[in-house]
Amino acid sequence: MKALTYHGPGRRTWGEVPDPAVRDPEDAVVRVDAVTICGTDLHILKGDVPDVAEGRVLGHEAVGTVVRTGPGVRTVRPGDRVLVSCISACGRCPSCREAAYGQCTGGGGWILGHLVDGTQAEYVRTPFADNSLHRLPPEVSDEAALMLADILPTAYEVGVRNGRVEPGDAVAVVGAGPIGLAAVITARLYSPGRIVVVDPDEGRLDAAKRLGADEVLTLQQATDEAVRALGRDDRGVDTAIEAVGVPESFELCTRVVRPRGRVANVGVHGRAATLHLEDLWIKDVTITTGLVDTSSTPRLLAMLAAGRLEAAGLVTHRFGLDEMPEAYDVFGAAADHGALKVALFRT
Amino acid sequence: MKALTYHGPGRRTWGEVPDPAVRDPEDAVVRVDAVTICGTDLHILKGDVPDVAEGRVLGHEAVGTVVRTGPGVRTVRPGDRVLVSCISACGRCPSCREAAYGQCTGGGGWILGHLVDGTQAEYVRTPFADNSLHRLPPEVSDEAALMLADILPTAYEVGVRNGRVEPGDAVAVVGAGPIGLAAVITARLYSPGRIVVVDPDEGRLDAAKRLGADEVLTLQQATDEAVRALGRDDRGVDTAIEAVGVPESFELCTRVVRPRGRVANVGVHGRAATLHLEDLWIKDVTITTGLVDTSSTPRLLAMLAAGRLEAAGLVTHRFGLDEMPEAYDVFGAAADHGALKVALFRT
Amino acid sequence: MKALTYHGPGRRTWGEVPDPAVRDPEDAVVRVDAVTICGTDLHILKGDVPDVAEGRVLGHEAVGTVVRTGPGVRTVRPGDRVLVSCISACGRCPSCREAAYGQCTGGGGWILGHLVDGTQAEYVRTPFADNSLHRLPPEVSDEAALMLADILPTAYEVGVRNGRVEPGDAVAVVGAGPIGLAAVITARLYSPGRIVVVDPDEGRLDAAKRLGADEVLTLQQATDEAVRALGRDDRGVDTAIEAVGVPESFELCTRVVRPRGRVANVGVHGRAATLHLEDLWIKDVTITTGLVDTSSTPRLLAMLAAGRLEAAGLVTHRFGLDEMPEAYDVFGAAADHGALKVALFRT
Amino acid sequence: MKALTYHGPGRRTWGEVPDPAVRDPEDAVVRVDAVTICGTDLHILKGDVPDVAEGRVLGHEAVGTVVRTGPGVRTVRPGDRVLVSCISACGRCPSCREAAYGQCTGGGGWILGHLVDGTQAEYVRTPFADNSLHRLPPEVSDEAALMLADILPTAYEVGVRNGRVEPGDAVAVVGAGPIGLAAVITARLYSPGRIVVVDPDEGRLDAAKRLGADEVLTLQQATDEAVRALGRDDRGVDTAIEAVGVPESFELCTRVVRPRGRVANVGVHGRAATLHLEDLWIKDVTITTGLVDTSSTPRLLAMLAAGRLEAAGLVTHRFGLDEMPEAYDVFGAAADHGALKVALFRT
Repeated sequence: MKALTYHGPGRRTWGEVPDPAVRDPEDAVVRVDAVTICGTDLHILKGDVPDVAEGRVLGHEAVGTVVRTGPGVRTVRPGDRVLVSCISACGRCPSCREAAYGQCTGGGGWILGHLVDGTQAEYVRTPFADNSLHRLPPEVSDEAALMLADILPTAYEVGVRNGRVEPGDAVAVVGAGPIGLAAVITARLYSPGRIVVVDPDEGRLDAAKRLGADEVLTLQQATDEAVRALGRDDRGVDTAIEAVGVPESFELCTRVVRPRGRVANVGVHGRAATLHLEDLWIKDVTITTGLVDTSSTPRLLAMLAAGRLEAAGLVTHRFGLDEMPEAYDVFGAAADHGALKVALFRT
Repeated sequence: MKALTYHGPGRRTWGEVPDPAVRDPEDAVVRVDAVTICGTDLHILKGDVPDVAEGRVLGHEAVGTVVRTGPGVRTVRPGDRVLVSCISACGRCPSCREAAYGQCTGGGGWILGHLVDGTQAEYVRTPFADNSLHRLPPEVSDEAALMLADILPTAYEVGVRNGRVEPGDAVAVVGAGPIGLAAVITARLYSPGRIVVVDPDEGRLDAAKRLGADEVLTLQQATDEAVRALGRDDRGVDTAIEAVGVPESFELCTRVVRPRGRVANVGVHGRAATLHLEDLWIKDVTITTGLVDTSSTPRLLAMLAAGRLEAAGLVTHRFGLDEMPEAYDVFGAAADHGALKVALFRT
Repeated sequence: MKALTYHGPGRRTWGEVPDPAVRDPEDAVVRVDAVTICGTDLHILKGDVPDVAEGRVLGHEAVGTVVRTGPGVRTVRPGDRVLVSCISACGRCPSCREAAYGQCTGGGGWILGHLVDGTQAEYVRTPFADNSLHRLPPEVSDEAALMLADILPTAYEVGVRNGRVEPGDAVAVVGAGPIGLAAVITARLYSPGRIVVVDPDEGRLDAAKRLGADEVLTLQQATDEAVRALGRDDRGVDTAIEAVGVPESFELCTRVVRPRGRVANVGVHGRAATLHLEDLWIKDVTITTGLVDTSSTPRLLAMLAAGRLEAAGLVTHRFGLDEMPEAYDVFGAAADHGALKVALFRT
Repeated sequence: MKALTYHGPGRRTWGEVPDPAVRDPEDAVVRVDAVTICGTDLHILKGDVPDVAEGRVLGHEAVGTVVRTGPGVRTVRPGDRVLVSCISACGRCPSCREAAYGQCTGGGGWILGHLVDGTQAEYVRTPFADNSLHRLPPEVSDEAALMLADILPTAYEVGVRNGRVEPGDAVAVVGAGPIGLAAVITARLYSPGRIVVVDPDEGRLDAAKRLGADEVLTLQQATDEAVRALGRDDRGVDTAIEAVGVPESFELCTRVVRPRGRVANVGVHGRAATLHLEDLWIKDVTITTGLVDTSSTPRLLAMLAAGRLEAAGLVTHRFGLDEMPEAYDVFGAAADHGALKVALFRT
């Protein structure tokens, strides 16, 4: 089959690799019907994630059709249309037993396109299929479902729920890439009083407005005072969601959060940040980090099926699966192309 | 009356100042029967808290007897024996209405010995007396009650409750000064599986053991691996409580906390710390900061009265009130004297 | 002044009574600009609330203008336009110090029109004015603000928040009177997947649909099976909110709630209900009761001012203040008149 | 093998039945080394649990040794010493994925000795072995571990945690049978201010005192006023734990709980209770019901191994496994024999 493989920093290939097979009784093999590329894949290609081996098939988000299952798989069967989630869950380890699937210590967690071959291929082997795939109702399109493979549950669990957004709150989302926009969408589920989005790219700020941001600020506009003034009473925002992954955006969050507020980090960071404890020690601030557990995926999927969750407006570019190199080129230069999420479909 | 006043960095005086009077209808004037010195007072004397004016009477912890009350005071009256809490609460502002008294925006918060004259004196004026004083039951001694003015509620609220200690958890307390020891005492209320205390001073580690620590480690012994190995499964501790106030101790906490664990900062910091988000972003860690609200004080006081909370063993040196200079000398060189809390009593 | 007074079961008078005056330093006297009648007032008139003395002025919901304040009042002054909340708070007792104002043991709680003279009059004395009145921003109309005096915070705190409504949940609201409709409005703040409303009155069900109910059922339609089938998976609803106050409606809630679900009682009950523990013991159900604390009032008020909370559509009949008897007649026969809330305005 | 089988109301047999075998790939077969009898088994024998088929082997609590596992079992293997928990968990259904194992809809939940053959036998087949067995550390004795099969996690999860016991709280436990005593033991983990136990049997009250109750009351002594007076301020207890399973004890709990308090029902009920909503509607009371999930079992097991949880003092009578009929006779007339838990051991 064709697949996108990693061959060391800067080197990717779209070419033939062996078809995957069921290797463990709890495996399923899924034909990929739709797949997307994550910012994390770009990090891998820069060499930032050294535990990705050369030859690895990348990708951890897909929608597909089950073609084979091992004898230990009970909840999906060949022919089922499924969401392939970014998180696999062994279902047995102490973390899984507390629904903390992202922290699975039994062989799951974020493994697809990382420690085992991933979804940017014609077929993918999915370990622990019962706890890692989600059957899709017919009323949910492939493209909408694709947004549930990673970005919507990540933004919801790690940004909005960790950040404890409540009705009437002022929320700042720093970063208007796909994760930041997903944070805007899912924060709205709690009827905040105001959502402020900060990003250097005006096109992304326009997308944020379209998806429900009340105020948008470029980096130049986003002085500490300007963001704080959009809080409930000039003391800052109740929740600041970091959706970039650089020290500067995290530090901005810590400066604009009000006393008793929350900073929810969602971004994938490669460097340390400075934490100004000389200011923060007295402020009753809560800072959270986290990898998505996808424990909310069934709930979000039901909301999507019922028309209660918006997933349209995130995909800006669509390709055939064999246009993988072109899709990477567009997503890798997202600003030049005005790209948010790219989606590739089996043709 | 005699009082300890601040006159700029390094300069303190024990001498005559005017007697305090009721200035607001909600004020009380309290005769100080017992008082203590806080590490924060030493910070002030170093010049670290620039909003303390010259001439200010220091001190924010005392036990005393009400001698006068304004006409708006309803819950205490002259003759009542009271705890003077480190936090004053206006009772009307948005923060107070959510029991976040430490964040009072109506003129309260930490004001005693900071923005208004404090307790290291023969008498003290206490604003918002109804919400800032606590009547003492006779079975609680002055010395025990003094531990409730700041350190026990601070350790309990900002360390143990923010850190969400649960039965069976592994807890690390970094710093075995009065606050760290109070964290050991109050963490035990939740029956953790193990309390590990880290401090450079072996005398303080002995005190920690006496008060309930299960394991004690000097700084040399407290390698990341050694502390993590004392967690429930070698992945780190569930809760790490920072009770020093320097970047090194905070950073140790962030390194030894397990995935899904909590770092509760209690220390008063003067410098920024480094937050290794490149390691922490994926670990589901919660970091909290905070000033005490003293919302737990009535509960802790009832437990103290019922013999359900230990407050003995924290005071190592006792003085007469007019030995204030000597008490400062001892507390200012605590390591040399093996001092934890010092207490001064009216004679 | 004119006032509506209670003179034993079935007897009310709209007539002259003495003007109220400041009797306590923390009192305010408020001129009533808008007032409404609560179902509870009808209960009182039936004699169901025996601690209401003869001669008592009824009413606990109003919007008005402060005309006089005692010397202990700090946050409002004559001329201020204010919301008179159904709950008064002493601000000092253990309950108030935990923001449980409805349970105030210091002389507050639900006292207006109950233990002291209330708001159905030209003027009202409001005890503990600082913690019981809320200044109104100009963009909030008298009529909209009136909905915040009782029904919106009651439905939100006692129904929606006690019932822990979450995005995607199925919610049943039993009763489509003013409180039930307010529960529909405030449940929507959490983006439930479906809101089902049950009521015998088709006009009220129409109002429920207009305010956001997804499904409405008459009593005949509301079989256990029919309501359960509207849950997320035929096992029942996540939250059932009782908004009537009779055993039948409470018992319906306990039958249609799913395992792990919540029953939030809001209705004022006069009789015992049967609790089928032989079915419920194994179901992980949480049942809550409660009087409103009005701790959410500032938040709801800000949302109303920002256009983030709907308060229109609840008042069906408007009167001049001196039409009090007519307003009672209409509200007392609400079904005949298609009445929800009635509002009376100073003319 | 020998087993205790049910043959309709009042009829039990200790006799030969076929040996169990692995029937599903996720099954294990466990040799029973220690087993106990639950009050629920007596209910079954009275005919109160009609879905127990004739011929069913009873029992849902055991400690044993794995002798065979299906090919889908990964975490235990033959020779492992394990706890057989009263709850089996499929690990895949929506309930299991939220750690609500007691509500498993995938074939688990409380099935042993109920819907499939149980543990009162020489061998038992345990479905979903990976998520239903717990490997035992050598330092935990069979007898102590047996207390973790049901009563300690049940009391902890359904009584203490649902009842949200906090340091300093007043807790009433109504019923001093094994579950009530386990509630005393596990409530103490949160350092309540006072634990009050109510039971008609003075011997059981003595056991309660020995295990940590502060006050014990016979039914005659346990007037509403007497229990309320043991609360923090005469208004009632913070948490009332129902550990009997009859309307009278549940109703007592609802009368003695303070405003804002919690009633946690643990008892297995066969009849409806009366809920006095005319008193309770205004009191901010939370009532919970539930079946144990055993999600706390790993934590409690670690505490037991570390000497942080008391399990001694609950077993009063010990038998050989083939003395099953005698053990039932003693446990069935517990009051006559002063029996709490009986334990039977393989000989």
